[in-house]
Formats: sequence, C-alpha cells, structure tokens
Amino acid sequence: MGHPIKTLIKQADEAIALQDLKKLMDFYADDAILVVKPGVVARGKEQIEPAFHRILEYYRGEMRPSQKEMVILEAGDTALVLAHTMVETPLMTDSPYPAERKATYVFRKNKDGDWLCAIDNSYGTELLLL
Amino acid sequence: MGHPIKTLIKQADEAIALQDLKKLMDFYADDAILVVKPGVVARGKEQIEPAFHRILEYYRGEMRPSQKEMVILEAGDTALVLAHTMVETPLMTDSPYPAERKATYVFRKNKDGDWLCAIDNSYGTELLLL
Repeated sequence: MGHPIKTLIKQADEAIALQDLKKLMDFYADDAILVVKPGVVARGKEQIEPAFHRILEYYRGEMRPSQKEMVILEAGDTALVLAHTMVETPLMTDSPYPAERKATYVFRKNKDGDWLCAIDNSYGTELLLL
Repeated sequence: MGHPIKTLIKQADEAIALQDLKKLMDFYADDAILVVKPGVVARGKEQIEPAFHRILEYYRGEMRPSQKEMVILEAGDTALVLAHTMVETPLMTDSPYPAERKATYVFRKNKDGDWLCAIDNSYGTELLLL
C-alpha cells in the first residue's frame, strides 16, 4: 500500500469527477484554503464548496483530476505533498488554466489521527511571478 | 513590515550566512524535516544541524541564501511559503545544485503563537521527476 494521503487524494479526485461536493468537503480542514486560480483564494469550507461549484460550472461539469507521480514530505502532524496533477476536462478545450500542473498540497493530522487538507494549491510555485 | 514569517526567513538566512547553526535551529520545529538534496531528508533538529554543517563545509563556509519574491498561503496554524530563493556561494562555482530555486516551506504555529519551520524544501516541485 502507499501513504494514506495518496488514498485520500484519489478519493477526493473521484468526488470531483462525480460532482459530489458534500463528500469532497470531508477531505478539507474547517479552516482550509483553496487557490481557485492565481490571486484568488477561497477560505474555509463555506467558501471552498461554492468555489468548486463555480469551477465545475466553468468546466461544464466535466472535470477529472488525477495525480501521476507524488512526493510526500511528512513532519509529525504536517505533510507537504508535491504532485504531478492532470486535470482532464473533455468538454472544455480552450481554458487558459493549465491541464498539467505541479501541485502543492499541505495536509494536517487532526486529534483523531486523520489527515485533512489544509492548503490546496494546484498551481504550485507557478504563483511566483518569475 | 510584512508577514512575520518573512522576518523569520530573513533572520534564518542571516544565521546561515554567519554560520550560526545554534541560532538557525531556533527557527525549526523539533520534528522538522529538511530536504538536503533530492532524495536525502534530514529528520529532526538532531539531524538538521549536522546536515547544515556538512552543507556549509561543501560550500566552503560561504553560503548566503536570500529570498526574492515570496507568496504566503496561510490556513489557521499552517502556512505554505513559496519563495524565489537565491543561494550565493562565491567560493563554489561548479556545484550541480541550482543557485536559483523555487522553494516550498511549511510553517506551523505552536501553542505560544510562534511560527516554526516544519518542512524546509528549497527544491520545491523539482523533486518530481517530470
């Protein structure tokens, strides 16, 4: 088997493909943040769920993220995930947002020992201007 | 002014330039990890301090890291820092390790409200093979 975080990310990707946003929210910490696009951040589940709703609308409901290679750097109750992420959107061929990304995710272990996503930044270091 | 984490990173960079490893360790959580180079991770202060000692020896004691642009993504007591990092090493001109990097650092706030570095990965998403 692999790292439990790999399983969680796979399940979250499946929830996005199924447009099951209630299930998707189970993977986030209450105070998590999502980088919606460079310069735009959704804060907390109350902003992340509607943000995903708008992202799915933008992609006409056809969005299938998947992760190829992943590197997990774990320090106690904190983990940094580096991922080669693919975002397949069959109905949308002219988006300015890249289909292939080097993503950075931060996970935190809660008191029950469960990993939750605290920072979801699929744009990785591309947020830097250089 | 700016984010307190920016000040901490500046002070840590100064401690490296001064080869003051005792002071440098103040910026790390006890269970922090440092990516020494791709594939090599130092775990905990007891490994990070000797790892920095070897890094400084490798660079013949002349290592001056600095950060240009930084993006800080903060979620409660966790923060992901993306940084355009420069590593000046005037006495070492033939190193295979890049002088210019897109780094990823994870900081965690402790019970006293102080930010500490939990994950120090100056190689960013370059750790992915793609």
